[in-house]
Amino acid sequence: MAPTTQIPRNQWYVAAYGDEIGASLFARTICGEPVMFFRDAGGTVSALADRCVHRRFPLSKSNRDGDKIVCGYHGFTYDKTGACVAVPGQTRIPRTARVKPYPVHEQDSLVWIWIGDAEPSPVSSIPRAPWLAADGGYTTLRALAPLKARHSLLLDNLMDLSHETYLHGGYIGTPEVAETPITTEVDEEAGIIRVSRHMDDAECPPFYAKSTGIDGRITRWQDIEYFPPCLYTLHSRIAPAGVLPPASGPDSDAFHVEITYALTPETETSTHDFWMVSRDFGHGDAGMDSFFSQMQAEVVQQDVDALNLLEELIAADGEAYQELSINIDTGALAARRLIKKLNEAA
Amino acid sequence: MAPTTQIPRNQWYVAAYGDEIGASLFARTICGEPVMFFRDAGGTVSALADRCVHRRFPLSKSNRDGDKIVCGYHGFTYDKTGACVAVPGQTRIPRTARVKPYPVHEQDSLVWIWIGDAEPSPVSSIPRAPWLAADGGYTTLRALAPLKARHSLLLDNLMDLSHETYLHGGYIGTPEVAETPITTEVDEEAGIIRVSRHMDDAECPPFYAKSTGIDGRITRWQDIEYFPPCLYTLHSRIAPAGVLPPASGPDSDAFHVEITYALTPETETSTHDFWMVSRDFGHGDAGMDSFFSQMQAEVVQQDVDALNLLEELIAADGEAYQELSINIDTGALAARRLIKKLNEAA
Amino acid sequence: MAPTTQIPRNQWYVAAYGDEIGASLFARTICGEPVMFFRDAGGTVSALADRCVHRRFPLSKSNRDGDKIVCGYHGFTYDKTGACVAVPGQTRIPRTARVKPYPVHEQDSLVWIWIGDAEPSPVSSIPRAPWLAADGGYTTLRALAPLKARHSLLLDNLMDLSHETYLHGGYIGTPEVAETPITTEVDEEAGIIRVSRHMDDAECPPFYAKSTGIDGRITRWQDIEYFPPCLYTLHSRIAPAGVLPPASGPDSDAFHVEITYALTPETETSTHDFWMVSRDFGHGDAGMDSFFSQMQAEVVQQDVDALNLLEELIAADGEAYQELSINIDTGALAARRLIKKLNEAA
Repeated sequence: MAPTTQIPRNQWYVAAYGDEIGASLFARTICGEPVMFFRDAGGTVSALADRCVHRRFPLSKSNRDGDKIVCGYHGFTYDKTGACVAVPGQTRIPRTARVKPYPVHEQDSLVWIWIGDAEPSPVSSIPRAPWLAADGGYTTLRALAPLKARHSLLLDNLMDLSHETYLHGGYIGTPEVAETPITTEVDEEAGIIRVSRHMDDAECPPFYAKSTGIDGRITRWQDIEYFPPCLYTLHSRIAPAGVLPPASGPDSDAFHVEITYALTPETETSTHDFWMVSRDFGHGDAGMDSFFSQMQAEVVQQDVDALNLLEELIAADGEAYQELSINIDTGALAARRLIKKLNEAA
Repeated sequence: MAPTTQIPRNQWYVAAYGDEIGASLFARTICGEPVMFFRDAGGTVSALADRCVHRRFPLSKSNRDGDKIVCGYHGFTYDKTGACVAVPGQTRIPRTARVKPYPVHEQDSLVWIWIGDAEPSPVSSIPRAPWLAADGGYTTLRALAPLKARHSLLLDNLMDLSHETYLHGGYIGTPEVAETPITTEVDEEAGIIRVSRHMDDAECPPFYAKSTGIDGRITRWQDIEYFPPCLYTLHSRIAPAGVLPPASGPDSDAFHVEITYALTPETETSTHDFWMVSRDFGHGDAGMDSFFSQMQAEVVQQDVDALNLLEELIAADGEAYQELSINIDTGALAARRLIKKLNEAA
Repeated sequence: MAPTTQIPRNQWYVAAYGDEIGASLFARTICGEPVMFFRDAGGTVSALADRCVHRRFPLSKSNRDGDKIVCGYHGFTYDKTGACVAVPGQTRIPRTARVKPYPVHEQDSLVWIWIGDAEPSPVSSIPRAPWLAADGGYTTLRALAPLKARHSLLLDNLMDLSHETYLHGGYIGTPEVAETPITTEVDEEAGIIRVSRHMDDAECPPFYAKSTGIDGRITRWQDIEYFPPCLYTLHSRIAPAGVLPPASGPDSDAFHVEITYALTPETETSTHDFWMVSRDFGHGDAGMDSFFSQMQAEVVQQDVDALNLLEELIAADGEAYQELSINIDTGALAARRLIKKLNEAA
């Protein structure tokens, strides 16, 4: 039987940026499940189902007592593993009083959570993004955009960058993005999709002209790596036209920007759109920080506005619409296929 | 099988006032279908389905390139017949890339659209309202009221003017409207319903007292002609009491106001309530323009408030309610019957 | 077959405070039924179904003509028994033109209404709250909180006061409330549930410390009487620690506060939360009035916020949640059982 959800379970998803979670109780819905997070006295993130077993009150609206959580309605008290350790008016604690704990793993400044009832895949299977780590040698700006659209709409958007020309003209789009054909490669075994577009002689869009200082045409490479279902990375290489990476040694004549997205379903029709922009130049340049941060936030908002609109149209129009795909959609279609496969396996 | 919609298809509907549609792309939902309108270089109105064939993006949020439309998401480009003439990243255009064009006809300052898959009825079958034309000899004020209520509620309202006494007291209602019996005539073949109420000696309501300057009682005739499903006209004749139309020649001792409504379903439960008030006196009198415009807007708003409320009650109460009809409802019941007939034929 | 509603019919419910209903037409939805109330020339409250028989227009949006109601849409006119006495445009009144009248009984400053099609239970069966009467010897502050949560959530809340410790700390909650066991008594025949918690040596919460002036620990008794489905009373007795009621004669060394709630379903998922706080001390003390009024309003709002949140979670989470009950829930579970019995009998 086909699954009725479009969200693969038994997967690791990014739940939060590491610095979002501290002493305060923190609530976020992941793949339709309400989860409460906090960082314990030892600095480790815990995640529990955000519903008291007694009368459904959200634990995230409750109080911490050291590493224990005291429900804000009637005082049911839990330790960080979810076991109930105290109830009001009696000393006997019911045997079944326990809220579900979630496996959590923190790396590269991201907090990952395992959603699903199966045994978690080893944490070594979680994709890496070392440029996001504190010692990764990159300067990163980032934020979280609330998106009222389903995961697959954001995935469509990111896997086909030809939309940059139309939706993001004046930011990152130039005519060459839409015109240059892509190459798509699907590594079925590793579960990775790669989409590349190498523009050897292209106009430099404002986003890069202003930040790199390049005055003139550029070599612009866009190499996407997508690790379904959650992590998307766009390796962007910018150099003056004709400047190619040396046969050996560091590619220090080029500017590198790693654009990372974590696409985490909130519900079937909404998504946590984590975005991060990391650069290997201009470290410590507050003006450049501010420029990247603002430009990328505007680009993301253009996407969010478009995708929110599409989600509204899906709700309004119903199932009548039949889409039509062309070459630019190869990466997105491959991504959908892998997601479907994960979903059916779950 | 009974249709599940209350909206007859294979019909002409008023989509817009002519002057609403110019160079900008213009979106309006008609009978549940999202449509994008624009006026081409030659001045002719085109109407296309408002969804790109690629990924559903609304063409109305896109850009014009002369008489071509370039989708704002990935650049799919259409001519004014809906044929796709360019796509990004490749030169071959898929054979099925075409958005649906709608037949359109503009007359008497109104833009009509044919909704339905059947061959359009000849444009000569579209009802006329010559007083709305630029050279019709009338001065017209008009607007469009968004109505969050179904077509049949507005139709009920307009076909039974006895409500003027209660809902529009102090504007157009006087006791005689509710007290005077109506005559109803249904021309089944032509598909026209006529409802007349002739008050020979009636109080003059503020709406007419102030505009005509008549000081005292009046002869007030209300002659409705309804052309299902969309066009409603109320021929209103006001004269000092006892003044009747001459046996021959122009009725120049009376004041004539043509009150025209176009009732176009937006969805099953909302309606575009186009209203127009045309008079054959006081041409060029800006104060009178402003008076008519404001009074009619307030009257329409009283109806809109009442009908929006009824629509909310239908949603809240469900099907439990059983209405009770009396003589005043003859016209509305005939109108419902003709609409049902059109709907079943569609 | 199990009823699909959680609201027992064929019951008396509190519809309003007596002073809410005067000369103006007053609308309130009770158990999903829209009702229009008014006080006739003789001072008696009438209640009619709030829908005109003609086209569903709410009579509460209409006009009074003495003790008659004239529909604001087309002028159908009703007397206070719901009989139609005039219609527009004709003298014959249809035999079936009648809106449903509701039995009403006013006592102890409350207006009760009978919901259901069965013969009403005698008004002597309506529970009394004599401290609310004008001559009851108590000073009462009261209000109505709109609650977007189902009746059973409010009932759960009120039947288990251990939540005072957690949700109302700093107001009425102290550790002893959660710690002290309750006794529960169900009088099946009379249909009354009693839950008592007697704290012999307890901290005095701010609500009582400031109002009674007691400086030190207290004897605090909470005696709940619940008369399903609507009336809830909490008899609260506060005295300095060790002061018990005398064997005979008035208990004048203690402070008594009667906290009364009427829990009237508005719909399946919203409730009219009538709350009243009556005290037998500090009569005529405007400062104390204001203190009680404000403190209780804040306490009620804490409950409303929590219960509104739970209702939202029920809607969002669906049926997956399985609650877990302990000793403190004995009263609430008994109340649910009696409500279910009433519902099945209806």
